[in-house]
Amino acid sequence: MSIKIGIMGYGNLGRGIECAIKQNPDLELVAVFSRRDPKTVKILTEGVGVYHVDEVLNFKERIDVLVLCGGSATDLPTQTPEYAKYFNVVDSFDTHAKIPEHFENVDKTAKESGHIAVISSGWDPGMFSLNRLYASAVLPDGKDYTFWGKGVSQGHSDAIRRIDGVKDARQYTIPVDAALKAVRSGSNPELSTREKHERECFVVADDGADKAKIEQEIKTMPNYFADYNTTVHFITQEELDRDHKGIPHGGFVIRAGKTGWNRENSHIIEYSLKLDSNPEFTSSVIVAVARAAYRMHKEGMAGCKTMFDIAPSYLSALSPEELRANLL
Amino acid sequence: MSIKIGIMGYGNLGRGIECAIKQNPDLELVAVFSRRDPKTVKILTEGVGVYHVDEVLNFKERIDVLVLCGGSATDLPTQTPEYAKYFNVVDSFDTHAKIPEHFENVDKTAKESGHIAVISSGWDPGMFSLNRLYASAVLPDGKDYTFWGKGVSQGHSDAIRRIDGVKDARQYTIPVDAALKAVRSGSNPELSTREKHERECFVVADDGADKAKIEQEIKTMPNYFADYNTTVHFITQEELDRDHKGIPHGGFVIRAGKTGWNRENSHIIEYSLKLDSNPEFTSSVIVAVARAAYRMHKEGMAGCKTMFDIAPSYLSALSPEELRANLL
Repeated sequence: MSIKIGIMGYGNLGRGIECAIKQNPDLELVAVFSRRDPKTVKILTEGVGVYHVDEVLNFKERIDVLVLCGGSATDLPTQTPEYAKYFNVVDSFDTHAKIPEHFENVDKTAKESGHIAVISSGWDPGMFSLNRLYASAVLPDGKDYTFWGKGVSQGHSDAIRRIDGVKDARQYTIPVDAALKAVRSGSNPELSTREKHERECFVVADDGADKAKIEQEIKTMPNYFADYNTTVHFITQEELDRDHKGIPHGGFVIRAGKTGWNRENSHIIEYSLKLDSNPEFTSSVIVAVARAAYRMHKEGMAGCKTMFDIAPSYLSALSPEELRANLL
Repeated sequence: MSIKIGIMGYGNLGRGIECAIKQNPDLELVAVFSRRDPKTVKILTEGVGVYHVDEVLNFKERIDVLVLCGGSATDLPTQTPEYAKYFNVVDSFDTHAKIPEHFENVDKTAKESGHIAVISSGWDPGMFSLNRLYASAVLPDGKDYTFWGKGVSQGHSDAIRRIDGVKDARQYTIPVDAALKAVRSGSNPELSTREKHERECFVVADDGADKAKIEQEIKTMPNYFADYNTTVHFITQEELDRDHKGIPHGGFVIRAGKTGWNRENSHIIEYSLKLDSNPEFTSSVIVAVARAAYRMHKEGMAGCKTMFDIAPSYLSALSPEELRANLL
């Protein structure tokens, strides 16, 4: 008996979910839903249908967990509480500041309907959050640091593309090596924004555009670049397409803390990710969470959950006995 | 209302538990139990009594969680199932091959008495196990590797000390750098025992002892050293006491896995620990687990658990709301 998954939204994340389901024999994709005309949406899995969003309620009895692949800005704040009325759902809501509000909204409808709704799954929020929690619970007398990268920031790439004279662009966020070293030394340094990350931009300019002006505009852009050391490289569209098409990402969560009667011993806990594909890794976390959501619902639990509320064994395809014998 | 903790056994681990309790304002040490004459056991916390093991049942109503600090070879196999009849308990049972048997024994008495008994808490088993579970659930198409060190192995140090002509010794387990690099490359190499770890020994020989013979005996010792590249340094007792008195340890759990419709993307998940004091870090994990055991018992759960069964939020002193607002 496989766990039946529906995918709501078929962009990079939806496609990643589809690929991840293929890797997990206990999961089965039963339908993909899109706001586009279903005839125009080509998916990878043979024999699985694409349907218009409006048809999703017809699948109430056929889907165990609906994975919501919309964006955090406008889709998920309404979609997750709405679909939690009818389905167990998982989303990857990642606007950190609005998580408490989103949680309350989703919790209400999920509790009323008796479903499990897991929000903010992925790697940050997600695996990185878990590591912040575990490390701070174990080393309360300490400080943690999160670094992102090296990886592509879609938001920053978009910001560059909006500049006059820019044809295309790709921006990488890069942790500053000296900052990583300082944190790993256990000295718990105070680090400014500029000291933690730098930004590297690959820009394709329109013919005849004023490159010096573009570079200046990038480097002084408030919020996005002004607080960082930023490097700008002008390249051709061919070079961009050849060398910068991937969506790599990753990062580090590091906590340094003290133990001992007189705080005489230091400890460093470090978790890091190095990802070829940000959306595919996020999707891989989400499908494990979907498995957990199914199991928790089956045991009679309901309401909004985050990865903080999920006992790790629920995520694995292995039985508790197998986990204890092989992984403990 | 603090959570009341009792410590059973006062060696390195018991003392570590005492130090960790001091760092967690929601926990309170109420008693230490020892097989030794209580008058001979000096603890660090003022106003807390030391009692003989035989008195522990008098504390049934005064202790929320009893932390068992005995050894895995002979103490815990009998202590954990026995004390789970009367207390919520946490142990750090670390004989990996015997965990399933230990679990069954403990589960029986804990379920009968309605207590929570968490076994195999610490970092391996413990935090490393959690990371093996999370990483394999997220990247099912992959392979994980655990490396230990650089750190002191008590068992290997003891083995050297049993050799004729050896006065004192300290052994370090060290991950081989080339192996770490190969694993981080994502190539999922097959690694022999010798390729993964090397062993470095600091030995104080008796006056006039045959050092060449001692070195030979160490390097050819079956199970302990014969399968490893081993370096032996002869030093003085003064040097050993000065430079090798600490109990550092640590290690790495690394999983490399593939995603994508055609397995076209690679990902590396890495978790590492660098610990000044192995027993103090283990203790720090255990007290967080004790907090979780108390909460789970209060919610009506019972039976044997491992860290796999504990939702992460139970481990933290922060409330679910604080966790979502600050760490997610």
